[in-house]
Amino acid sequence: MSKPDQFVEIHRNRILEELFSLLRQPSISTRDEGVKECAELLARSMTEVGITTRIFETERHPIVYGEMLREGKPTLLIYGHYDVQPPEPLEEWSSPPFEPVIRGGKIYGRGSSDNKAQLFTYVKAVEALVQSFGSLPLSVKFLFEGEEEIGSPSLKPFAMNNRELLRSDLVVYSDSHIHESGRPLLILGLKGMLYVELRIRTSPRDQHSMRATSIPNPAWRLVWALSALKDRTNRVRIPHFYDKVLPPTPLEREAVSQIPYDEEALRHHFGVKEFLPGRETRHYYMNLVFEPTCNIAGIVSGYIGSGSKTVLPSVASAKVDFRLVPKQDPQEIFGQLQNYLNEEGFEDIEYGTHSMIEPSRTPIDHPAVPLLREAVSRVYGQSPLIFPNIGGSGPNYIFTEILKTPCFVVPHATHDQNNHAPNESMDLEGFFKGIRTGISIMLQLGEGWR
Amino acid sequence: MSKPDQFVEIHRNRILEELFSLLRQPSISTRDEGVKECAELLARSMTEVGITTRIFETERHPIVYGEMLREGKPTLLIYGHYDVQPPEPLEEWSSPPFEPVIRGGKIYGRGSSDNKAQLFTYVKAVEALVQSFGSLPLSVKFLFEGEEEIGSPSLKPFAMNNRELLRSDLVVYSDSHIHESGRPLLILGLKGMLYVELRIRTSPRDQHSMRATSIPNPAWRLVWALSALKDRTNRVRIPHFYDKVLPPTPLEREAVSQIPYDEEALRHHFGVKEFLPGRETRHYYMNLVFEPTCNIAGIVSGYIGSGSKTVLPSVASAKVDFRLVPKQDPQEIFGQLQNYLNEEGFEDIEYGTHSMIEPSRTPIDHPAVPLLREAVSRVYGQSPLIFPNIGGSGPNYIFTEILKTPCFVVPHATHDQNNHAPNESMDLEGFFKGIRTGISIMLQLGEGWR
Repeated sequence: MSKPDQFVEIHRNRILEELFSLLRQPSISTRDEGVKECAELLARSMTEVGITTRIFETERHPIVYGEMLREGKPTLLIYGHYDVQPPEPLEEWSSPPFEPVIRGGKIYGRGSSDNKAQLFTYVKAVEALVQSFGSLPLSVKFLFEGEEEIGSPSLKPFAMNNRELLRSDLVVYSDSHIHESGRPLLILGLKGMLYVELRIRTSPRDQHSMRATSIPNPAWRLVWALSALKDRTNRVRIPHFYDKVLPPTPLEREAVSQIPYDEEALRHHFGVKEFLPGRETRHYYMNLVFEPTCNIAGIVSGYIGSGSKTVLPSVASAKVDFRLVPKQDPQEIFGQLQNYLNEEGFEDIEYGTHSMIEPSRTPIDHPAVPLLREAVSRVYGQSPLIFPNIGGSGPNYIFTEILKTPCFVVPHATHDQNNHAPNESMDLEGFFKGIRTGISIMLQLGEGWR
Repeated sequence: MSKPDQFVEIHRNRILEELFSLLRQPSISTRDEGVKECAELLARSMTEVGITTRIFETERHPIVYGEMLREGKPTLLIYGHYDVQPPEPLEEWSSPPFEPVIRGGKIYGRGSSDNKAQLFTYVKAVEALVQSFGSLPLSVKFLFEGEEEIGSPSLKPFAMNNRELLRSDLVVYSDSHIHESGRPLLILGLKGMLYVELRIRTSPRDQHSMRATSIPNPAWRLVWALSALKDRTNRVRIPHFYDKVLPPTPLEREAVSQIPYDEEALRHHFGVKEFLPGRETRHYYMNLVFEPTCNIAGIVSGYIGSGSKTVLPSVASAKVDFRLVPKQDPQEIFGQLQNYLNEEGFEDIEYGTHSMIEPSRTPIDHPAVPLLREAVSRVYGQSPLIFPNIGGSGPNYIFTEILKTPCFVVPHATHDQNNHAPNESMDLEGFFKGIRTGISIMLQLGEGWR
């Protein structure tokens, strides 16, 4: 066992106690509960291991920035978020969400996997390396935000205004979860997102349904508009929607084909009879990674209680989220959507947007890939599956598109983490594997980066 | 002034007090509140004027039957309902719903226009005729139900099991309202109704929306199914839907063309820019009377709160009501609907029905029409507008289709009656005009029926 790994082993209980302090501090960004206190607690824990730390105020919640630099060495930027989802419904928790406990090899508590334990692995990796060798093998910067669960509104302007401060050779962070089989992952990208709300009002108030011979019904208009967006083969009908979709490279296609995949078991898991056809295949992972989506997340109009009411609704609305793949641009697609529906005769739709996130994908042939693969393999005893991107969305584009820096995600939580749900947990060994992986990554990059 | 009209004038205050007793008695059928007590009160008021009255129990609320027969004379069956809608929201009433008061020439109270005052006009007409002449000019039967506001579930079996008891030459009743201009109406029919609920479930639970590449979305399937039902020109696409629609006769068309109609004022009243195209015309009344509808009364799936949630729903449902015209059959159209959607590939839809009501329309050239027109004209000083049918639905088919008896509706409420809403009212003079019209109808039929 290496010196830094031994250090972690020896200080296991203290490290856990430090993590628990972080988990005990609520930091619910959506309702401003304890976020500032959590930022200060996190900053103290960074300062204690020798990281030069500074708290930046934003319009809402602070950004905790830290650095430990070594002249002439590559710079690694670690991203993470210390804010958490609200814990409700409380009655479904087996133990209180902000009183962390270990049960059956898992650390239970709100924010355990998402994202406090996973971000804390890097702070502890730095401590172990410094305590073992007196210094780091490379420069490390930390960027921990408190607004991820509310859509990271301050992160983009902060990045644009602090390009020099955040300059680095690559970004690495830990979020999401490893494969069900226990295989680790190396994630190279995230999907983008365009989340729109469509709303049609045809009259000032609901009417008696007998007037349906003459009074327009917004629910019909919405149904017609939506059915113009996507046909029954699930192909999006918005002109030019697919124009900028990057075809997968042979290496990317090869990586996805290696993801373990039992279609029947997966269908059984989701409780569905058949997977949807993609444009080329029904292969679950090929479509999850390479295909954009157009999803009705919600639709409502008229009377939705039990029984019947003969009403002609006055208003109808739908929430539609598009998951975008590189190089689709959410702003551009929002324009295409509106043009198309206008041309189809739906000029009466009012639009709102809930989020616009650009997709991101670091090239699979980037020179950091073999270094990170090796670093992860050494800890997990097996090489990571490589996802060119996963199905979810997030702020990676701020690194890849704005800071022009490659970005990699190395998850340590397990697939049963229940993030955003009651009884969120972080696998106990996953946490310590995470610290050892952080050490391993820093050593690999410090030695191998060219 | 005729003797019976004089009688009504002299006893005006007592008659009003009797009506108020009826209005003070709640009779909310949907939650069994005071319905039995109201039936007994109504039966007593009928017995008091000499009507042989009997209360029939049903599976839910009693039917009050009465008769006053004259050998060798035509028989008039008066229909009505003594149950009322729930009064909620109570805070929107200017005076308590079951404490009737007169303000500005209107009797305010739940059930005032719908239907207690309007049915009571016939009881008082009988009293006035008997007190004036010693007997009625014809035989009169009364059929007052306590379940109209919950869809008249007992009326059809009662009619089928009591054909002899209910045998009559024609049915007349008063419900709905006169024209905005003050012109009285003679209504010859009602639309039918097929109210269905469509439900699609694609998986056992909601999923993260990133899985939309492979997991079917029931909201999309529902949108596609609905858009197959009706196209953007508002034409129903169910094969054979229009096959049995009776084309209007020249007389019916002529009657509808005489309904006063200011399209711009009407559009302004409803707050809509343009009326929908019918199959032949945009004429409001032509379409209201002669065209069937297919209306989305409600649709819901997924997340419908404020803000956004990236969910892939597991279930979607819609409530759709069809207003049917003679001779469309709700049962048959329900079958056509299911066949069509099955053929279109939507075998996964589950169906429920909330109501099936047959349309009804008494021929406009029926010999009672000129008699009733004359009877109404004498009271109102102007001849009634004739509606071959109105846009609403109701139990008339039980008379026209099951008992094979012509059926006529003569409204006395005004268009601002607020039935089914807070501050329901009955026009005070409309009530007394109603009694005089009842007298006039009985005299006309007694003299003129061949």
